[in-house]
Amino acid sequence: MLTLFYAAHTCSLASHIALEDAAADYSTVRISFAAEEQRKPDYLAINPKGRVPALVTDRGILTETPAMLAFIAQSFPLARLAPLDDPFLFAQVQAFNSYLCSTLHVAHSHRMRGYRWADDQAAIEAMQRKVPQSVAACYELIEHKLLGAPWVMGETYTICDPYLFTIAQWLEEDGVDPSRFPKVVDHRRRMSERPQVQRAVAEELA
Amino acid sequence: MLTLFYAAHTCSLASHIALEDAAADYSTVRISFAAEEQRKPDYLAINPKGRVPALVTDRGILTETPAMLAFIAQSFPLARLAPLDDPFLFAQVQAFNSYLCSTLHVAHSHRMRGYRWADDQAAIEAMQRKVPQSVAACYELIEHKLLGAPWVMGETYTICDPYLFTIAQWLEEDGVDPSRFPKVVDHRRRMSERPQVQRAVAEELA
Repeated sequence: MLTLFYAAHTCSLASHIALEDAAADYSTVRISFAAEEQRKPDYLAINPKGRVPALVTDRGILTETPAMLAFIAQSFPLARLAPLDDPFLFAQVQAFNSYLCSTLHVAHSHRMRGYRWADDQAAIEAMQRKVPQSVAACYELIEHKLLGAPWVMGETYTICDPYLFTIAQWLEEDGVDPSRFPKVVDHRRRMSERPQVQRAVAEELA
Repeated sequence: MLTLFYAAHTCSLASHIALEDAAADYSTVRISFAAEEQRKPDYLAINPKGRVPALVTDRGILTETPAMLAFIAQSFPLARLAPLDDPFLFAQVQAFNSYLCSTLHVAHSHRMRGYRWADDQAAIEAMQRKVPQSVAACYELIEHKLLGAPWVMGETYTICDPYLFTIAQWLEEDGVDPSRFPKVVDHRRRMSERPQVQRAVAEELA
């Protein structure tokens, strides 16, 4: 039995969708960022990083979206969520997810979480001003170099798809004109039509 | 045959060491950041991100350190660089590496690469001032919650070890007092005694 700790409007949606894709037996616990529950002792005992997502398993607790997505794919091989028998193709999947995690998500985080990297308010505002540009630069690369069709890796749906869908929710809030990235927007629409995505989103926004 | 594109003093050292650990048949190409070779057309044709590392394989090019490390472990299973048959343990390895990539390396990058996230000089300097604190916060977590002994994952050497060793090279430059983190420093020393590490470092600094 798996328990996903998530917060609405965060990257935890990617793992939530992947659990639906895997038809996993799982439950969820919602963490309220508004109430700062992620910084309270009860949650820090689960994830000392004070972040979401966290996945409680029978063997221990996992964190970090790319690791959790690969874990879900490997734990439910019949769902075929990653090319598990091909190290090169698996590495391509992981490289895409690592880029989302360490470059695109990080660029986005400078809009609301600038206090992680600077203390003074003027610097935090300077970071916010650059988000539309730094986030768009990531989408330039994704749109023109990385993104296949109909899915990120081409013909085959993988754990890259829920992760891109999740982060692409933030395009407009980050001040990026989505019309510049028609393939990304098309992918987002295609994902939104999947019942697995609809179930995960509906629960998080309920 | 594998070809690693690396730059000295960067995170590409982690993959370089892992290739040594795997006893892989590989060659290297050095990219000069001083000459900005990573932004020139020849290199952008290999890695359009304009970053290192990149690993050229017979099937295509891989980027992103966590993905490359897992690829090396999976491609050379006899080297036993990751718990490949256990999705939970493999996810723990990947979670550690994902944390290094997306949180610790990112905190460090605000010292020299602040221009990625803000345009004005005062903001870039404000980011630099916070690096000792934000990097040390990551090491607090690593020292007290994540790091095993003698290796990151405990008794077994994995692809976490060359990655932590690589990033821990930057402790002093980032303004962090290493005496606060004796387990990290002990790990760094232990790694430095391995012939595989010595060979990779010697080539990069030659």
